[in-house]
Amino acid sequence: MNALDLILKKRAGKSLAAEEIIWLVTNYTGGLIPDYQMAAFLMATYFQGLNSKETKALTMALAESGEVIDFNSKEVVDKHSSGGVGDKTTLVLAPLVAAAGLNFAKFSGRGLGFTGGTIDKLESIPGFCTNFNTSQFKKHVLEHGLAIAAQSDKITPADGKIYSLRDVTGTVDNVSLIASSIMAKKIAGGAQAILLDVKAGKGAFMKSKEEAFQLAETMVRLGKDLKRDVVAVVSNMNQPLGMAIGNILEVKEAIQTLQGKGPQDLVFLCVTLGGLLLTLTGKARNIEEGKEIINEVLVKGKGFRKFEEMVIAQGGDASYIHDPELFPQATYVLEVNAPLDGFISSIDAYKIGKIAMDLGAGRKEKNAKIDHTVGVVLNRKVGDKVSKGTKLATVHGNDKNVIKEAATDILQAINISDISVEKEPLIIGCVPPLL
Amino acid sequence: MNALDLILKKRAGKSLAAEEIIWLVTNYTGGLIPDYQMAAFLMATYFQGLNSKETKALTMALAESGEVIDFNSKEVVDKHSSGGVGDKTTLVLAPLVAAAGLNFAKFSGRGLGFTGGTIDKLESIPGFCTNFNTSQFKKHVLEHGLAIAAQSDKITPADGKIYSLRDVTGTVDNVSLIASSIMAKKIAGGAQAILLDVKAGKGAFMKSKEEAFQLAETMVRLGKDLKRDVVAVVSNMNQPLGMAIGNILEVKEAIQTLQGKGPQDLVFLCVTLGGLLLTLTGKARNIEEGKEIINEVLVKGKGFRKFEEMVIAQGGDASYIHDPELFPQATYVLEVNAPLDGFISSIDAYKIGKIAMDLGAGRKEKNAKIDHTVGVVLNRKVGDKVSKGTKLATVHGNDKNVIKEAATDILQAINISDISVEKEPLIIGCVPPLL
Repeated sequence: MNALDLILKKRAGKSLAAEEIIWLVTNYTGGLIPDYQMAAFLMATYFQGLNSKETKALTMALAESGEVIDFNSKEVVDKHSSGGVGDKTTLVLAPLVAAAGLNFAKFSGRGLGFTGGTIDKLESIPGFCTNFNTSQFKKHVLEHGLAIAAQSDKITPADGKIYSLRDVTGTVDNVSLIASSIMAKKIAGGAQAILLDVKAGKGAFMKSKEEAFQLAETMVRLGKDLKRDVVAVVSNMNQPLGMAIGNILEVKEAIQTLQGKGPQDLVFLCVTLGGLLLTLTGKARNIEEGKEIINEVLVKGKGFRKFEEMVIAQGGDASYIHDPELFPQATYVLEVNAPLDGFISSIDAYKIGKIAMDLGAGRKEKNAKIDHTVGVVLNRKVGDKVSKGTKLATVHGNDKNVIKEAATDILQAINISDISVEKEPLIIGCVPPLL
Repeated sequence: MNALDLILKKRAGKSLAAEEIIWLVTNYTGGLIPDYQMAAFLMATYFQGLNSKETKALTMALAESGEVIDFNSKEVVDKHSSGGVGDKTTLVLAPLVAAAGLNFAKFSGRGLGFTGGTIDKLESIPGFCTNFNTSQFKKHVLEHGLAIAAQSDKITPADGKIYSLRDVTGTVDNVSLIASSIMAKKIAGGAQAILLDVKAGKGAFMKSKEEAFQLAETMVRLGKDLKRDVVAVVSNMNQPLGMAIGNILEVKEAIQTLQGKGPQDLVFLCVTLGGLLLTLTGKARNIEEGKEIINEVLVKGKGFRKFEEMVIAQGGDASYIHDPELFPQATYVLEVNAPLDGFISSIDAYKIGKIAMDLGAGRKEKNAKIDHTVGVVLNRKVGDKVSKGTKLATVHGNDKNVIKEAATDILQAINISDISVEKEPLIIGCVPPLL
């Protein structure tokens, strides 16, 4: 086997044998295949695609490039979002399903660009530790029913190396490469049941529903090929999820949600996804029963107590959870008010995400530092009636000039119409159609 | 400007501005753009192509990456073959057209794989020097009317670097990349009139006529865009050109040809191409007159004397030219005879090229050493009638086992049919249609 032959084979649209894909991944990770040959292979793959057998082989090669956690036949669940703006779902969903009896084990990423990252959010809780080795991670999951850790170099190192290369060679957005990268991490993380929340819309990587469903279907088929239980939801990311965008602001909103005071869309999504996970694992006979169980866990405060348990277990200072006013605040908080009467017709999630990033809540570059205090809190969502002067949002920032610009940009991101607007459904679809 | 944006632009099938292509080439050559980004760009280009403006910009960027020879408005001609088996045309054509009054200036390559290289052939003449700096090269052309030099690092270094990358990333066979690479070297070499011999068939890089014509048309259009006089001939490379394949064997055949004793196909091609070059430069009113002039030069031995002049000027030992028996011979010479009566229906040029390479006449890898003495000499060509026992070819080799295998392989490469076979025309077409 040699790399050039495999490049030419893929370039010609032929499919590679599993051994060939494994050989390619192993030798690239081992430094025997240079970056430029892998880059050419990835670009050829962008144009010619991978079939389901190739995608499966790639996923397993990535998964097995590092440690693979074995929960010794104990069923463990995981959830993955394709990334959005204001998406703090994991912070709420993980304790809810853990409190309902599932084992939730998640390696998560940091934010990049206009989207946030679960690890950044959790790290805004003083003391909260996300650096686990695999045996610590396993112990936490088995003792507390949940653990959320930062991606480690020991897990799917081949994916780390290939992803870095894709990032700089224009080969990120291919559905098979995306699916295998996500699923490899889930396989290595030891999950048996996997819930995928594929975001579609302005504030997502997949702008169109078609692309989102293509990814959802690829992931579910791949899960089946890998003998995992997978369900994928496609959800709307045209406007941000919930009200808060920015790390501490989102943690506060997650706490409120777990205390029964969450925004309607976030609560709806968390209860639905939780219900799906219970159904997928057989803890509920159907989605309605699953949602009822999650709802009860939420209403009785069991989710909040599980969150508190996780925070303490992972070294976080629980006093911040009990009294969120302890969290540091941004120096400047500016209100943005409606310039006219009407109905909110759209809140551009991409623009809001970019404003939050510019304020310092996100990373423009991979290793940039982030500011946990800054961000945007919406006061109204799409469909709401507003009058001239109604507070639309508050901007939290630590730089006077940036915050002023942000306030102006917010008005560009929020459209007000003089006729009433129908809300788009939050959940667009589910593969397989369990909802 | 950044490389990733340009990769994504090309990936999306958009065309790049001239400045963008120049920026890419300059920064890649300067080491500011890494190989992996260039590899991704080249693979995207393979799939999306370059339009004529982009191809022109790329050609100029490559040409201007190093020294550009200026013959001070003195018209200089060059000839390029896309590579074949037994193609010693340059050795014959260059002295013929120089003797007819043209200035022939050529930087040439070494053989790789199943095709030979003019420089390797010339270097089989003891003392013959092909390493010139540009001022020596210029001086030789102006004093003797011809010079053939090995490609230098000073000429189109960007092309050298990009070609090396294409070679290992599966991005060689794109018509725009091929055309710009060839033409950049011609521009940098100072040629005003350029003749291209695009080979089509089993022993060529372009297996089909369609591909060959596509390259011919691209090159001619590119030449027009670059204000050069270009004519491209598409010629048949299903069977080897002439009788000899292998370095010394081909030099001997070139000498015989210049002495009026050449094989019919090689003589025909050289006279036609010479006539075309005279027509292209206005030294002949039409192709018929051009061919007549070349024919006279050949018959009167002026071509042979010009070849002798070049050999002496470039440091070669002319006694070998006067008495080719002085050339060293391979240790073993094996005859291959017809196994049955019939007509030769095909001689697979690719197989013969590969046999010659296996004998040591060509390079399996870039820096491999070659053996000047070995090769194959055909005794019959397609269409010839043979009887059982008729000598078909002789194999010249220095390894007993290899030569035995070669003799067996020769019989696989030569097909004998029991019905008479029509010869394929040697010249398939000409762009523009001057023939």
